[in-house]
Amino acid sequence: MDRGEPIDIESDGMFSKGRLERNGSGISDDMIIREPLLKKRTNTTSQIAIVGANVCPIESLDYEIVENDLFKQDWRSRKKIQIFQYVVLKWTLALLIGLATGLVGFFNNLGVENIAGFKLLLTNDLMLKDRYFKAFLAFAGCNLGLAVAAAVLCAYIAPAAAGSGIPEVKAYLNGVDAYSILAPSTLFVKIFGSVLGVSAGFVVGKEGPMVHTGACIANLLGQGGSRKYHLTWRWLRYFKNDRDRRDLITCGAAAGVAAAFRAPVGGVLFALEEAASWWRSALLWRTFFTTAVVAVVLRALIEYCWSGKCGLFGQGGLIMFDVSSAISTYSTQDVLAVLILGIIGGIFGSLYNYFVDKVLRTYSIINERGASFKILLVITISLLTSCCSFGLPWLAKCTPCPTDPKKQCPTIGRSGNYKSFQCSEGHYNDLASLFLNTNDDAIRNLFSSGTEEEFSLYSLFIFFVAIYCLGIVTYGIAVPAGLFIPVILAGASYGRLVGTLIGSISDLDVGLFALLGAASFLGGTMRMTVSLCVILLELTNDLLMLPLVMLVLLISKTVADNFNKGVYDQIVKMKGLPFMESHAEPYMRHLVAGDVVSGPLITFNGVEKVGNILHALKTTGHNGFPVIDEPPISEAPELCGLVLRSHLLVLLKGKKFSSERVLTGDEVLQRFDAFDFAKAGSGKGVKLEDLHIEEDEMELYVDLHPITNASPYTVVETMSLAKAALLFRELGLRHLCVVPKTPGRPPIVGILTRHDFTPEHILGIYPNLKAQK
Amino acid sequence: MDRGEPIDIESDGMFSKGRLERNGSGISDDMIIREPLLKKRTNTTSQIAIVGANVCPIESLDYEIVENDLFKQDWRSRKKIQIFQYVVLKWTLALLIGLATGLVGFFNNLGVENIAGFKLLLTNDLMLKDRYFKAFLAFAGCNLGLAVAAAVLCAYIAPAAAGSGIPEVKAYLNGVDAYSILAPSTLFVKIFGSVLGVSAGFVVGKEGPMVHTGACIANLLGQGGSRKYHLTWRWLRYFKNDRDRRDLITCGAAAGVAAAFRAPVGGVLFALEEAASWWRSALLWRTFFTTAVVAVVLRALIEYCWSGKCGLFGQGGLIMFDVSSAISTYSTQDVLAVLILGIIGGIFGSLYNYFVDKVLRTYSIINERGASFKILLVITISLLTSCCSFGLPWLAKCTPCPTDPKKQCPTIGRSGNYKSFQCSEGHYNDLASLFLNTNDDAIRNLFSSGTEEEFSLYSLFIFFVAIYCLGIVTYGIAVPAGLFIPVILAGASYGRLVGTLIGSISDLDVGLFALLGAASFLGGTMRMTVSLCVILLELTNDLLMLPLVMLVLLISKTVADNFNKGVYDQIVKMKGLPFMESHAEPYMRHLVAGDVVSGPLITFNGVEKVGNILHALKTTGHNGFPVIDEPPISEAPELCGLVLRSHLLVLLKGKKFSSERVLTGDEVLQRFDAFDFAKAGSGKGVKLEDLHIEEDEMELYVDLHPITNASPYTVVETMSLAKAALLFRELGLRHLCVVPKTPGRPPIVGILTRHDFTPEHILGIYPNLKAQK
Repeated sequence: MDRGEPIDIESDGMFSKGRLERNGSGISDDMIIREPLLKKRTNTTSQIAIVGANVCPIESLDYEIVENDLFKQDWRSRKKIQIFQYVVLKWTLALLIGLATGLVGFFNNLGVENIAGFKLLLTNDLMLKDRYFKAFLAFAGCNLGLAVAAAVLCAYIAPAAAGSGIPEVKAYLNGVDAYSILAPSTLFVKIFGSVLGVSAGFVVGKEGPMVHTGACIANLLGQGGSRKYHLTWRWLRYFKNDRDRRDLITCGAAAGVAAAFRAPVGGVLFALEEAASWWRSALLWRTFFTTAVVAVVLRALIEYCWSGKCGLFGQGGLIMFDVSSAISTYSTQDVLAVLILGIIGGIFGSLYNYFVDKVLRTYSIINERGASFKILLVITISLLTSCCSFGLPWLAKCTPCPTDPKKQCPTIGRSGNYKSFQCSEGHYNDLASLFLNTNDDAIRNLFSSGTEEEFSLYSLFIFFVAIYCLGIVTYGIAVPAGLFIPVILAGASYGRLVGTLIGSISDLDVGLFALLGAASFLGGTMRMTVSLCVILLELTNDLLMLPLVMLVLLISKTVADNFNKGVYDQIVKMKGLPFMESHAEPYMRHLVAGDVVSGPLITFNGVEKVGNILHALKTTGHNGFPVIDEPPISEAPELCGLVLRSHLLVLLKGKKFSSERVLTGDEVLQRFDAFDFAKAGSGKGVKLEDLHIEEDEMELYVDLHPITNASPYTVVETMSLAKAALLFRELGLRHLCVVPKTPGRPPIVGILTRHDFTPEHILGIYPNLKAQK
Repeated sequence: MDRGEPIDIESDGMFSKGRLERNGSGISDDMIIREPLLKKRTNTTSQIAIVGANVCPIESLDYEIVENDLFKQDWRSRKKIQIFQYVVLKWTLALLIGLATGLVGFFNNLGVENIAGFKLLLTNDLMLKDRYFKAFLAFAGCNLGLAVAAAVLCAYIAPAAAGSGIPEVKAYLNGVDAYSILAPSTLFVKIFGSVLGVSAGFVVGKEGPMVHTGACIANLLGQGGSRKYHLTWRWLRYFKNDRDRRDLITCGAAAGVAAAFRAPVGGVLFALEEAASWWRSALLWRTFFTTAVVAVVLRALIEYCWSGKCGLFGQGGLIMFDVSSAISTYSTQDVLAVLILGIIGGIFGSLYNYFVDKVLRTYSIINERGASFKILLVITISLLTSCCSFGLPWLAKCTPCPTDPKKQCPTIGRSGNYKSFQCSEGHYNDLASLFLNTNDDAIRNLFSSGTEEEFSLYSLFIFFVAIYCLGIVTYGIAVPAGLFIPVILAGASYGRLVGTLIGSISDLDVGLFALLGAASFLGGTMRMTVSLCVILLELTNDLLMLPLVMLVLLISKTVADNFNKGVYDQIVKMKGLPFMESHAEPYMRHLVAGDVVSGPLITFNGVEKVGNILHALKTTGHNGFPVIDEPPISEAPELCGLVLRSHLLVLLKGKKFSSERVLTGDEVLQRFDAFDFAKAGSGKGVKLEDLHIEEDEMELYVDLHPITNASPYTVVETMSLAKAALLFRELGLRHLCVVPKTPGRPPIVGILTRHDFTPEHILGIYPNLKAQK
């Protein structure tokens, strides 16, 4: 056992009562509020590089071996075939991820456009016949039905599919496996739940869910589907390690963004800026390939649909706004207006984060009570949304139709800006045009240029307030819900509002103001810059507004950063996922590595008694155990290396024991296939319960040397914790051995894990650091 | 001394004769050819993190301290002011870099357009008057004069300014200081040399030089100008460390691309994909800000010029091509055509790299002979270029002018597609329209859409061959020369050639084919993907062609990667800059860290005799020395840490010596200002010659503990070299201590430096690895 403390990030129930009590004195009320919502969690991943220079079967399981660059020129021709297989497979997987994500993205849009379109057509028809109450019933009924369907899927089949999914994917790519977050059931619910949820008229987006879907697809493909079917599993063994899985899932996340926004470059940048914690140039290229495939698939399918073969799915299906601003110049007051827009947008954005946080904490209390409460909450929000969407347009006045004969007014069919609602012939209700539309169409209406008169100030104000509030109260209910679309909607209406207000001062188009407003809100909540900028560019297809979008994003991010963290970071923290930040916290500089290692340390001998190993495995949840060689095997006690729980389990299952404490060497491994030690998929590896060790075997010995990582990364106990954190983070470690400064002491002081770097752990041991902080 | 071997990457003359002889047996002919061209080199940078947890003055010099995130919440209010200063300064510097680079970019274009424009107008006028020979003399004379001016600047003032500069910037960001590569004189020559060189009609670009210029500007601003003027030096002390300089230079490089192409997002991605070796999210944001400033500055200045106040600098000054392809759909044969285009482009691209490499090696022999030979070479190439540019158009037939009255034909003024050259009234020479134009205008002509008939197949073929060859022979002469424009020119003519050839099969526009051809060549030479894609998008302002551009880039890069490395990597290698790749070489897996450490190791005592230190400093060029505590200071010999040459020099200069071997502790440091130990600019630190140690002081002792980094990163000697390389590279180290596996031996085995990971070093020790490889 590496650390005597019974509760650890790597075992279940890290934040169980016991832990909070133990460190009770150091944890203030403030911290108890911050108790994470996600309780059940397993983390079964191995240290990134488990082997030294000795060539042994274990070695060929690790990423260093299967990494393309590394053994491009390996010596044995047998290996060359493996490399070829690996490279081909890597690109095939990227292609498949792109294809699948593109298809799912298309399916998502197809579903939403048809379901929501049917609902809206029905409502519109009834409204035209002046059957207002029936129209409301139809509208609210459809919404409720769809919402309940989504909630049932979410609550009973895969609770992990609720919400955006981006925080979980981000945490996964940082090295934290949240419970069943990439399971096939989650994928299924995420796809269908998202279609149903968006169709139900909620103020939610499909972008977060698409990212999560892409990640799930990547994970599923990387595992070769289900184990039952033994599909191509021999080839996929190359991907049974942390690094390759992580790479695949990065590709998947990028493909998700690409599919949601039809923004291939934006997708790559999103993966780079927001999702991934480690990045390599090689990955840039592969991700780019995946998103290119997504773009091609979507384009092909949309072209197919232009001929009208996809029901109500029209040209406007996948969001692609043409803000043809045709601005070639802007004056000082324009820039000033944009500055102010950015500042206020940043404030609103960070407020949004604040409220989302509060609402999430409240909802989590309700959601924890069980599936039925979850569904009840969804029903409540669905009814609220329906009432707002249907009720608020009554507040708007009827506007005479524009005289331009090219514009169909009032709108008859599925899409269009001019909903008649309650208005008489030749008039339209501008608020209904926003509310009684899909979110995509509403955004398109807000972004449309050359339409200064279309929406009144009053309507825009109502819409802004309603969407801002609905967006906040909707996130957290048990349906897959993205945050991009609510934020873009609120931001666009805010921007258009400002644009209409100061229309006399500025020459910029109100559509452009709407875009800039959306950018400011996005910058204020998500805190991304380059990727948002590129996504917005790809959405609107106008490069000339680039400087203004950049300016707004920079300002709103700067402003919002003064108040709180980005919304995804906030959710990661709230869920209690032990995210390793890329920089060390300031108080870490005042501690050394030895300060946060907590004992007593339990180690194994190089040749250890089976009973001792079994006992350690049973009584702790640790995944890494130091192995110490002692006389007579070595001259003095020395650190032999680190052995992983998963490898110990495989070794014990092999039952190659000896009655004496002797080195059996690599012959032990001849009983195993080279890939027996490969990292199994979540929940698929050998478990402790699978072992059937007889009583008399308990006294036998097993040589741990063949499965020991003989050169783990180590730090000296006097190293600044900040420096150790840097090493831990940059190399993506899971275990870091702390060795003594002075010779003559036991060769290892302890092991640092991810958990030891969390503020909860450190401030738990050193409460006064918190006061100083 | 850390390693007994006298020649080291950190000392001058790493690849001197001595070294080659010593390892002669292991170095084949092939390797001697690869002997680097750059001989003089100093590398005076410190290990990335020099301090542990003990708060001492040294500590506050290191990046960990000045890093914004780290001490955002530092305890002492005095520090808070420093943090504020640091943050304000960081952003101010980013702003200034953006402003300065934008201005230089504008100046560059202004200069080129006016000088080259004047030259071309003169030639054109003379041609219209049928004075052909006089026209040639004027043309060639202008070219020669400008070329010689550029060459004189380059050869006599700053030889480091020749060539692209991107490889050197890339190496700097990897941690290798090439000699005077970022010096003010280099900046000066790069700016003016680039203007003169491009104006001289060479087939060279301004992009590489702009990147280098941006990096120089960043370096200069970060150092606070010259030391003489003491300008804001107190504030800039925060930037006197490796990491902050590196960050600034990354911003500068991105700003350079942004200024060259007016591509702000492309600039950021270029810095990320090609230039930077380490990347943080925080940097993404700052870089983005810098490029946004560049974009705004350029836009403002260009708007100013639209009114005609900038001489011949017109709307077309900064390249911005509008390939309004208006493609909404493409068929299978279009995609097939694009595939083939990409494959052939990839082959041509890698061939380009191959020839550039050969030509560079040949030129280096000439250039090494002295400045006059350099100038002679420039004169030769200039005459060759003039002859081609003026002579080849005679091969083209005169084409009747298009009937469209909107098009001015033949061209009278500065720009325009229809040069009359030798042709009679109402006719134009299509080849002259390409050759007798600035490179930017030639590219614009090639990219122009809806002009299928403008250039004949024959002319395009001649132009392609000529530019391809001229581009190859021009790079390597003593003028600042970018590679982007030659490659784009050659690629665009190739693409347009293919487009014209298969015009009957494919519906795509020839302008689009030219763009795709340029993309394929760029992918084949530079091997970037995402950044090139975005740069091309920003250049052409058309997002609809994105999937095709992505496809072409991916294919051409894949094809070309089978033959050789990217052109910048190739130049880095040829120059002998010890670039640390992000992945370990395969043969490293068969070695352990202890294998490549070469002895005998010279270490210092914790309290060391001044004479010994001075001797070690004098007789070696090493920058890191292990410090060992021995009894009576410690119980047993133990590794105290690592001390840097630069800090030793400062300490010795302070002359705080004691006559006994005692710990004097931190009082030693009271003689020093906190920033005395800050990393000085290149060539500005304390030098060995500055020390004046008396003979009797030689026997005194000095306590090294206060300036020792007490917790350097260490690896055990049995660690796989590949793993050690990963640690070294990921953390950006300069020294890595190798400690023994078993206790009881001396506490340090040796020190690994960047040099120990180079193939030259490893294959020098283990020649048989090469055979196996």
